[in-house]
Amino acid sequence: MRIAIDAMGGDHAPDEIVAGALEAVAQLDKEDEVILVGPQETVQAKLNELGSSAARRPTVVDAPDVIAMDESPIDSLRAKPRSSISILAKLAKLNEADAVISAGNTGACVAAFQMRMRNLPGVNRPGIAVVFPMNAGPVTVCDVGANIACKPINLYQYGLMSSIYSKHILGVAQPRVGLMSIGQEDAKGNEVVKRTRELLKSDPRLKFIGNIEGRDIFQGVCDVVVCEGFVGNVILKLTEGAVDGLFRAIKHELMQEKPHLALKFKPIIMRVYQKHDYNEYGGAPLLGINGTALICHGTSKARTIRNAVFAAKKYYTQRINERITECLSEAGVRTSDA
Amino acid sequence: MRIAIDAMGGDHAPDEIVAGALEAVAQLDKEDEVILVGPQETVQAKLNELGSSAARRPTVVDAPDVIAMDESPIDSLRAKPRSSISILAKLAKLNEADAVISAGNTGACVAAFQMRMRNLPGVNRPGIAVVFPMNAGPVTVCDVGANIACKPINLYQYGLMSSIYSKHILGVAQPRVGLMSIGQEDAKGNEVVKRTRELLKSDPRLKFIGNIEGRDIFQGVCDVVVCEGFVGNVILKLTEGAVDGLFRAIKHELMQEKPHLALKFKPIIMRVYQKHDYNEYGGAPLLGINGTALICHGTSKARTIRNAVFAAKKYYTQRINERITECLSEAGVRTSDA
Repeated sequence: MRIAIDAMGGDHAPDEIVAGALEAVAQLDKEDEVILVGPQETVQAKLNELGSSAARRPTVVDAPDVIAMDESPIDSLRAKPRSSISILAKLAKLNEADAVISAGNTGACVAAFQMRMRNLPGVNRPGIAVVFPMNAGPVTVCDVGANIACKPINLYQYGLMSSIYSKHILGVAQPRVGLMSIGQEDAKGNEVVKRTRELLKSDPRLKFIGNIEGRDIFQGVCDVVVCEGFVGNVILKLTEGAVDGLFRAIKHELMQEKPHLALKFKPIIMRVYQKHDYNEYGGAPLLGINGTALICHGTSKARTIRNAVFAAKKYYTQRINERITECLSEAGVRTSDA
Repeated sequence: MRIAIDAMGGDHAPDEIVAGALEAVAQLDKEDEVILVGPQETVQAKLNELGSSAARRPTVVDAPDVIAMDESPIDSLRAKPRSSISILAKLAKLNEADAVISAGNTGACVAAFQMRMRNLPGVNRPGIAVVFPMNAGPVTVCDVGANIACKPINLYQYGLMSSIYSKHILGVAQPRVGLMSIGQEDAKGNEVVKRTRELLKSDPRLKFIGNIEGRDIFQGVCDVVVCEGFVGNVILKLTEGAVDGLFRAIKHELMQEKPHLALKFKPIIMRVYQKHDYNEYGGAPLLGINGTALICHGTSKARTIRNAVFAAKKYYTQRINERITECLSEAGVRTSDA
């Protein structure tokens, strides 16, 4: 399997990305290949610096330009056809890579992958699925930002695709699907939510539990959360912010009141962090794209990138896309219906 | 001032509501009156039980019916014209109460108050403003569920009204207003967000800081967060769930690993809780309604209700509604523009 990685994506590129690629190469099967995409000289220099002793090395594909994290996706892709993200998407399109991974500009990744790789047959719009690691088990939230103008058919397909992902990647036997709304009662929610509810309800292959509310994500009531990209993006970033804010508040109190306790308490916090560490999952798949594409957090370090490589391999070998295509071809709801 | 309270609203009604009303009466000025709205016999019995020794007592207005927390707002208001929420709204309409407070069915409250009390001149749609108590200062988020089909003019008005609230109720001299989106760059967000951005930007009376993301709520970058009701509702409940889930996870680790530390750690958690306790603010005002209306959390206990009474009094005496009307009459943006 050939896995291409955007060497220039994210806040810690290229150092941490190259380091992660090297870690992955060392652990992958011999027939697997890791391809680093970025400015040839920069990436080679980094490889020489970090991996001089490595028995196996990633291949490098030159991409002289870089799209910054805050650039406009469409404008930057147009202006920089030789950016690492553009080249990454091209490799997938030309079947020169079986999977692509980037921790770069999410909007540019989604746009480039959609433009080059196209959607799986039957999929209207791809969605990004992020896994929230919870005590009660992993919760997959889709979409978290690929599609901020969702139609009911999109949300319904996110439910189907995320269920397949949850089952075959995360090992949840019968994923319970919840629809994010503002109350559990049937009548709650906007028009898109209400119509999505009917679609999800109508598919007997789904274990649909109905509407859920924001707090339910943390209470183990479902394994899959369906929401439109704007809401999902707020959910993702809000959760990060809330957890971070709370830990800071606890630390502040400890240091003010009982500094001697702070040290004792640190390992507890570390354990809680570890159990809820999304870095373990490496990256978020762009479900519905015709290929294997993982988008990593902008703050990704080497470990996340390494994990993303193995996540991509699992996605590929578990034939997630074939399962999605098969499932959608059997779906009772057609594009034209919703 | 006459403050009417829904005696039957919330998970702990009528016990905690009546108890809160009694606490408030004991501390209010002599000329102030608290009116409890609910089934006459039930409320009187509860008053006798809890307040037999009280020197002053709330008045009781009979409302034999109760709207449950999970009932459909519109259907239940139609079917139960003598419910406590309906009567509450009627008292405000007939000018028999200067403020209304309920911890009951939020949707029914919003519908009843809008129907009976109407909007302030110039306000298109009222919005619920919730205060998030943060280390860096209180953050007002509006709307959290009154309006799930927001137009740019609604969001713009939420920014204006919340700024007035933040300044005159919470004491923030120059409230910084952020617009909830999925990225800080101008181009990020859906169409409603982009058009709202232009409206907020165009008003020199606002201290508009631009788009914010979910995590920013916890980082002290702004004092007011503008968002549509669906997103705001998810934000509110997600934050509750995340904080609760994290405390549970910490407790779990402590009990497993260092149970002797758990006791020492408890006061720290309590202090963090206290500093972030929204119950201190009593209830969330329905900004833009022609009157003073506070909606409390369904889990409200006596303390929250007592605090809501004083919050209502402050809202009234600070002439928030006059300030809103004045501000909107001077606004450059008219209903017809957006």
